[in-house]
Amino acid sequence: MRDENLDLIKNIQKSFSRLSKGQKLIAQFITNNYDKAAFMTASKLGNKVGVSESTVVRFANALGYEGYPQLQKELQELIKTKLTTVQRLEMSQDYTNEGAVLKKVLKADMDNIKATIEEIDDEVFQNVVNSIFDAKRIYIIGLRSSSTLAEYLGFYLNLILDNVKIVTPGVSDVFEQMLRVGKDDLVIGISFPRYSTNTLNAINYTKEQGAVVIGITDSQVSPIASISDYTLVARSNMASFVDSLVAPLSLINALLVAVGMREKDEISSTFDKLEKIWEKHNVYNNKNTI
Amino acid sequence: MRDENLDLIKNIQKSFSRLSKGQKLIAQFITNNYDKAAFMTASKLGNKVGVSESTVVRFANALGYEGYPQLQKELQELIKTKLTTVQRLEMSQDYTNEGAVLKKVLKADMDNIKATIEEIDDEVFQNVVNSIFDAKRIYIIGLRSSSTLAEYLGFYLNLILDNVKIVTPGVSDVFEQMLRVGKDDLVIGISFPRYSTNTLNAINYTKEQGAVVIGITDSQVSPIASISDYTLVARSNMASFVDSLVAPLSLINALLVAVGMREKDEISSTFDKLEKIWEKHNVYNNKNTI
Amino acid sequence: MRDENLDLIKNIQKSFSRLSKGQKLIAQFITNNYDKAAFMTASKLGNKVGVSESTVVRFANALGYEGYPQLQKELQELIKTKLTTVQRLEMSQDYTNEGAVLKKVLKADMDNIKATIEEIDDEVFQNVVNSIFDAKRIYIIGLRSSSTLAEYLGFYLNLILDNVKIVTPGVSDVFEQMLRVGKDDLVIGISFPRYSTNTLNAINYTKEQGAVVIGITDSQVSPIASISDYTLVARSNMASFVDSLVAPLSLINALLVAVGMREKDEISSTFDKLEKIWEKHNVYNNKNTI
Amino acid sequence: MRDENLDLIKNIQKSFSRLSKGQKLIAQFITNNYDKAAFMTASKLGNKVGVSESTVVRFANALGYEGYPQLQKELQELIKTKLTTVQRLEMSQDYTNEGAVLKKVLKADMDNIKATIEEIDDEVFQNVVNSIFDAKRIYIIGLRSSSTLAEYLGFYLNLILDNVKIVTPGVSDVFEQMLRVGKDDLVIGISFPRYSTNTLNAINYTKEQGAVVIGITDSQVSPIASISDYTLVARSNMASFVDSLVAPLSLINALLVAVGMREKDEISSTFDKLEKIWEKHNVYNNKNTI
Repeated sequence: MRDENLDLIKNIQKSFSRLSKGQKLIAQFITNNYDKAAFMTASKLGNKVGVSESTVVRFANALGYEGYPQLQKELQELIKTKLTTVQRLEMSQDYTNEGAVLKKVLKADMDNIKATIEEIDDEVFQNVVNSIFDAKRIYIIGLRSSSTLAEYLGFYLNLILDNVKIVTPGVSDVFEQMLRVGKDDLVIGISFPRYSTNTLNAINYTKEQGAVVIGITDSQVSPIASISDYTLVARSNMASFVDSLVAPLSLINALLVAVGMREKDEISSTFDKLEKIWEKHNVYNNKNTI
Repeated sequence: MRDENLDLIKNIQKSFSRLSKGQKLIAQFITNNYDKAAFMTASKLGNKVGVSESTVVRFANALGYEGYPQLQKELQELIKTKLTTVQRLEMSQDYTNEGAVLKKVLKADMDNIKATIEEIDDEVFQNVVNSIFDAKRIYIIGLRSSSTLAEYLGFYLNLILDNVKIVTPGVSDVFEQMLRVGKDDLVIGISFPRYSTNTLNAINYTKEQGAVVIGITDSQVSPIASISDYTLVARSNMASFVDSLVAPLSLINALLVAVGMREKDEISSTFDKLEKIWEKHNVYNNKNTI
Repeated sequence: MRDENLDLIKNIQKSFSRLSKGQKLIAQFITNNYDKAAFMTASKLGNKVGVSESTVVRFANALGYEGYPQLQKELQELIKTKLTTVQRLEMSQDYTNEGAVLKKVLKADMDNIKATIEEIDDEVFQNVVNSIFDAKRIYIIGLRSSSTLAEYLGFYLNLILDNVKIVTPGVSDVFEQMLRVGKDDLVIGISFPRYSTNTLNAINYTKEQGAVVIGITDSQVSPIASISDYTLVARSNMASFVDSLVAPLSLINALLVAVGMREKDEISSTFDKLEKIWEKHNVYNNKNTI
Repeated sequence: MRDENLDLIKNIQKSFSRLSKGQKLIAQFITNNYDKAAFMTASKLGNKVGVSESTVVRFANALGYEGYPQLQKELQELIKTKLTTVQRLEMSQDYTNEGAVLKKVLKADMDNIKATIEEIDDEVFQNVVNSIFDAKRIYIIGLRSSSTLAEYLGFYLNLILDNVKIVTPGVSDVFEQMLRVGKDDLVIGISFPRYSTNTLNAINYTKEQGAVVIGITDSQVSPIASISDYTLVARSNMASFVDSLVAPLSLINALLVAVGMREKDEISSTFDKLEKIWEKHNVYNNKNTI
């Protein structure tokens, strides 16, 4: 049985050498035009590339699919995150009722986390934790819906470390806030579909300044992945107009726990200080409420 | 077998009438002092209430637990979210390495979503969706780490509806931003441990003004639940200094998809307008990046 | 003696009909290329336009200047606000000491207010107040340093009126926040040198949607003035890298007092409600401190 | 003629030694209860203190006032900034029309700047500039309407220096953002009537941690003045519900120009870098618009 979390593009690359000449043409076309291929019939795709329909079917088989429809479904899955919101809204399922929506969305998010566990690279994760402790200054940038992840990561990281800066649009723009970034600094860029141009521009600037870049994103082929030193991938698939940031948030939890674990003794005194402030200024509700 | 998601306090209340007189004393003590009881031995608890140790054990059995240690574990689980950060840091597991952290945290978040699916009330969810469409104005308030959820919910709800206001601390404080809330308005309060006092104060004010209140929180016994017209419960357990907002975020996704589904035809034209603006101002990266 | 606050360009336009043919050529060139003319000698300017150097000098006299150097100084003054920050830093005076800086900057700001009083059009101001009361919804937008003015205006206007929205960059971008602006709405755009492109783009969008636009800016020839229904001009000259927003802030004070004056009886009850909230939550320090 | 900007309380203190015994009793009562005294008749005040009405009148004369009404007017002026918003709204003048409002408000702001120039202490200003360059880290805090000043000061200071942090309410509260403040750090607190309690609490915390505190406020007797190492006073009088921050903004301009002047050569290269970024990303509108 095929692993449903196998990355189609990587599969194509891995299988490339043992494909026939005609199949290689299909492989190249798909790699470069997967968004178009996803909506072509086997016949139309064959026509485009200059091979027969049956070559297309055998190509699908060679990659481990039962037939072309299965391959095409995977292609459509792949591009889902890059569709416009209107296209995605049209593609979204018609649920029979709101109870069904509720369970399907939560189950889809569990699947996103499950896929994230299966795909994540422990060594990269460890390197990311190391680079957080090695950095002179840490900048966290995420814009639009991803800014909620950046704020969450920054909120907790600021409780642990004293060199963290959350970059958010405000009076100063993102470039001004990152103006002095340098080669000893770390930039954590959070970029999920539909990838914000400003985030990518800002990350590119920090890369030019020599900073180490960690990308938290939805795939190894996302725009930020190509400019990151380390890429942490978390799934954000959601068959609707919403980009689910549930698995990315869970990944960020893990990152925070891992960072906190290393500093356990030191941060305990920080939290002690905070507890006193919180209590003095009544920040938290302490009443038992049963 | 016991349902692990059964709420201990509800279980006590349900079983109350068929308990012995001594067991009833224990039940009352636990209900009022569960945070203390959680750290007492059976003997000490019996002593405190004035019953024998074996009465305490039989009380645990009567509630369906194998013994007192199992009941105590559940009590500790219950209060975990109300511990100080320092206490929680001390309670957090010592993971052998960062790969282990990663997988355990993500699995814990999957469990949080699973428990949320099992416990959520479809009818309440449907009522919440209805009340969103019935409201004159919708205020969303969440402070501290919960503000990231409020911003996320507000970001998408603002794309669908034209009467949504995210209440965030800024130049104006939260009361000023909610000053004119009235009985035709809906307030969505997001409150997770350790419950922000300001959120509760603000929600109380809106309740006094007659607004309908939806609480998104971690249990039916959280402070906000007692003043909400509808309470949506999502689990936030995390054995560390971080409060996991993963299941709450997934619940919010479901809420957004359900609201969007009802307005599918109307919002399609809104998104169409947005796509043109986004394209004109190059908001999203459109380059294929394989 | 010439009124130093006389607007050079208006002066040229007013004097145009009584200029000689050669002087008219100079007038047209300056109006269209004042930034270049500001750095040309009389001889070079004459050369460019095709007239003699003495015609240039007589042109300066005709406008009321002692000679060409005085006219040129005024041109340089005019463009100061549109120079790059580096150019402006180079132009800034070398003060002998910090006490001198202090007094000169404060005096310059008094002059900015004085010039604003002399130039402001009472009727436009009254129309602006009227349009605030006529609007269905009021959007306030100012970005970069002008966002501080937008926040200030919005903070107080929100205490008086219930239909005010401050547009600030955040999770949603400025276009999304103004998406539903329509012909019954009012947009107050605050735009000072060096004029933010995003503000102008956003104002242009609202203009296309039919909204009434009030521009608060530094001159009748600023980019926002050309797309505003009403333009309120406040001086922001400052011979340094800082754009002084002092006179604009004073103008906003006047706008707030004028709006508040009309609603005096109604807002008194709002403030009464606020005072109770402020007192309950200890927002203000009430201790006498002598 | 009396200097209208003479501080009444200082005047009382200066004159104290040469007052009669009965006058001294009045002086002490007023110093401690100026807010009550401001609304007492000469007869009532004498009664309260246990002296005759004519002693009260002679006390007014001894301080340089024509009579008691003039002294009382000054007392009322003094407390204006500490009145509730409702009281201030009731006290505000009834202007005959909006043109009158406009000119009176702008003139009042010019007077505020004028008084600020007359009262400011050059040496303190110079010490403030020095302390900015001596600090390890610089925190800027201002809440409610004063947050606009904090943002403005921070926006420009961030362009000049690399160790500036604006403290604004957000996901993290103000204490968390200042948690690690220490004795090598500088805190600039901006606090104008009606003084925000949170600002004062935060400043007190930083003082306890040993930080140097600069207070930017409206008088030497404001709450923040008593805990500041250096106090910069700028007038904020406004006979309405608005607190005018015009003179404070002008003072901040002067501070920025003075700081920038010292770093002229160094910051020129920073601005050069910024200009390239601004141009690349089209931050400013560059079209000549005449």
